[in-house]
Amino acid sequence: MDAVRLVEVGARDGLQNEKLTLSPQIRVQLLQRLADAGLQTLEAGAFVSPRWVPQMAGSDEVFKALPVRPGVTWTALVPNLTGLQAAIAAGCQEVAVFAAASEAFSQKNLNCSIEQSLRQYQQVMVRARDAGIRVRGYVSCVMGCPFTGAVKPEAVAAVSAALFGMGCYEISLGDTIGTGTPAATRALLAACRQVVPVSALAGHFHDTYGMAIANIHAALEADVRVFDSSVAGLGGCPYSPGATGNVASEELVYLLDGLGVNHGVDLGALIDAGEFISAELGRPTGSRVARALLAQRGLSAVH
Amino acid sequence: MDAVRLVEVGARDGLQNEKLTLSPQIRVQLLQRLADAGLQTLEAGAFVSPRWVPQMAGSDEVFKALPVRPGVTWTALVPNLTGLQAAIAAGCQEVAVFAAASEAFSQKNLNCSIEQSLRQYQQVMVRARDAGIRVRGYVSCVMGCPFTGAVKPEAVAAVSAALFGMGCYEISLGDTIGTGTPAATRALLAACRQVVPVSALAGHFHDTYGMAIANIHAALEADVRVFDSSVAGLGGCPYSPGATGNVASEELVYLLDGLGVNHGVDLGALIDAGEFISAELGRPTGSRVARALLAQRGLSAVH
Repeated sequence: MDAVRLVEVGARDGLQNEKLTLSPQIRVQLLQRLADAGLQTLEAGAFVSPRWVPQMAGSDEVFKALPVRPGVTWTALVPNLTGLQAAIAAGCQEVAVFAAASEAFSQKNLNCSIEQSLRQYQQVMVRARDAGIRVRGYVSCVMGCPFTGAVKPEAVAAVSAALFGMGCYEISLGDTIGTGTPAATRALLAACRQVVPVSALAGHFHDTYGMAIANIHAALEADVRVFDSSVAGLGGCPYSPGATGNVASEELVYLLDGLGVNHGVDLGALIDAGEFISAELGRPTGSRVARALLAQRGLSAVH
Repeated sequence: MDAVRLVEVGARDGLQNEKLTLSPQIRVQLLQRLADAGLQTLEAGAFVSPRWVPQMAGSDEVFKALPVRPGVTWTALVPNLTGLQAAIAAGCQEVAVFAAASEAFSQKNLNCSIEQSLRQYQQVMVRARDAGIRVRGYVSCVMGCPFTGAVKPEAVAAVSAALFGMGCYEISLGDTIGTGTPAATRALLAACRQVVPVSALAGHFHDTYGMAIANIHAALEADVRVFDSSVAGLGGCPYSPGATGNVASEELVYLLDGLGVNHGVDLGALIDAGEFISAELGRPTGSRVARALLAQRGLSAVH
């Protein structure tokens, strides 16, 4: 098995779903530590209204403070053209847009239909191309919707094809509520790779039901080579308060090490970055790997 | 994929590794709830010195209080002939013996070599056969030893073959420190099935590094159909204090449901049993599935 690329989403998708709002300075420190650990693609902020997402306020400051690092890409989430323009003004070089595979989720989360969201992103794509900015596409609810339950692989494939067709270089398939299992993961990927090259598909798994690592392994066996993860498992699940959200980057790295797959990340430095941000949030790490290895280091118990 | 049999180890392997010692009465209540949830093979106690394992004191009372239930087997761990005789006296009908695949672990945990432990079990087997009692064999450290690191699949196969050869009806392969990943799981099973029929192999995975469900899935694909698990993830990891031990039964059931594999367990009743025992222990459940589904039920947050 060849190399895997990790997309570290802790500083955006993670922190956006934590109760505590951290300053742009702390978020920059986290991002620098994560890049020091070897991560090369890092979500660094979101250009959304701070009224809706206070945790991402000051994302422009974050981008302005982040240095240019060879081989490192800092990315931002943008919901629309206004967000894109703010991202460009802050010096951002890659952005992500997000659509849902569930109509109900699109309505509740984006306040418009899937069709309307895609139409809006076409304008974003044109403007981004003019500015020389790469765009990644997120699809949410790929194996289940918190409002309507099961989601068909064909529905996910259709949205993925639309985003890829309009120019997204990569489609990240998000199991937003973490209900997927390996069989569903395989069915999902079988459908999506018919319309998007598998090399342009990424897996974004949540560990809400403890299935993320098994699903990632199934996706690896189905040739997916890009995975999103979140240091210390940052980010809860807004649809199951108190439950787990993003899969921990530490677990992903541990799995890849066990499989002998290259990834370029230093697990010890990653765990240190996770301890830094967990202390800032005043909560224990959500990573089992971090807990086990920290206990072995003889450091203070973290539970 | 056909049906899977779960061996519920929460009331023994789980509680034995919890700080708080619970009364035999509470343990009987837990076992009854677990059997009500549909579990049919349940570890109920251990006939070991209460000086070494105070959590299992009164196992004779537990067995005397447990009713005969059609289709349900209550089992006990026995370290030697003395333990077996106590188990027989308490009316126990199935016992388990345990050997290590790592010489260092055998010395530290059993105070004798692997060879010596196996020789001792031969006497146990003879006496058990005379008494009409089935014996299961545990092998620990199958993918790693807390003292010496990596463990070769061939070493595990040798111990497994010895236990099977002396009459154990099933060999449970224990990833005691939870360091295994799916590739190692496959290599382990490839070696063990050369000397023991795969239908007589069981998987006993720990979730210390969050790999248990992925390893179980790999074992399922390698034809293993019996898995040990622990309600609410009872039982920590004595080699990484504060870290996770046994895989939660709830996660195993959730995985099997997602794969469409029969198992006969009611997930809701299982979660209720987990809540009962977690409350007795005064600690949150270790099951992510339980946390997610309890949050959806709108019950009190358990974190």
